[in-house]
Amino acid sequence: MKNEFMQKAIDLSVESVKNGGGPFGAVIVKNGEIIAATSNSVTKDNDPTAHAEVNCIRQATKKLATFDLSGCEIYTSCEPCPMCLGAIYWARLDKVYFANTKNDAKEIGFDDSFIYDEIAVPIEKRKIPTIQIMRNEALIAFRNWTAKEDKIEY
Amino acid sequence: MKNEFMQKAIDLSVESVKNGGGPFGAVIVKNGEIIAATSNSVTKDNDPTAHAEVNCIRQATKKLATFDLSGCEIYTSCEPCPMCLGAIYWARLDKVYFANTKNDAKEIGFDDSFIYDEIAVPIEKRKIPTIQIMRNEALIAFRNWTAKEDKIEY
Repeated sequence: MKNEFMQKAIDLSVESVKNGGGPFGAVIVKNGEIIAATSNSVTKDNDPTAHAEVNCIRQATKKLATFDLSGCEIYTSCEPCPMCLGAIYWARLDKVYFANTKNDAKEIGFDDSFIYDEIAVPIEKRKIPTIQIMRNEALIAFRNWTAKEDKIEY
Repeated sequence: MKNEFMQKAIDLSVESVKNGGGPFGAVIVKNGEIIAATSNSVTKDNDPTAHAEVNCIRQATKKLATFDLSGCEIYTSCEPCPMCLGAIYWARLDKVYFANTKNDAKEIGFDDSFIYDEIAVPIEKRKIPTIQIMRNEALIAFRNWTAKEDKIEY
């Protein structure tokens, strides 16, 4: 089954290139069934967050009407970039299968490796200047969150 | 102006808690004007990717009808998690201002620090099992991408 699910993700990546999208596909599986199947739609949707994995997580959570994908696995045609890996952790997926690597992605012109490097670098050395201001003012929302008794945690 | 923009992001984070959302807000500014203003809507939208920054990037790119936010700055009430930092890089924002830190977020129960740690760890040591299969089959989409002459790069 594993190979069938990955083949579906790969098929989506190949189709995507034909249709003018990025060369990436993903599926999410629950109890042995595909519940979401997507490809990269960054240029089609004018949405830089519309990677195959993010699209797939959004499709699956919409379908299941929950933000928690525990019990699900994702098959992605390429190693997730940091954005997608973050999304996978927030979605609490059980397992990740991938095919192409971030270095394969780098070789065809995608920034995945660069962003992995940037995340590991201290804030003051990042290529995108990143500046902290107004922490004292912002902490109030965190204190209110802690004090709120009926909050929905995620 | 910087402090005004951040205050708006903070106001959104405080409002969000009142409305049952996570304690995070963000705005994107272009040429001295706010073009997008959002808060975290993970639980409201059943979407684990709906962090304030991702929502803000999606709102701004929709408004400007482009996936490229060069020339724009983001003000976020909390240091971006890896998912949001990845989104910021993919969107090619010029600058990031943040207020609360990832450690502040950790102290009120959010996984940002954990995900930063996980990204830095080799794949075989990640808490979410991550397995490579079928690279040879998947590379075809990458070769097709390279060969495609009329592709829209991003």
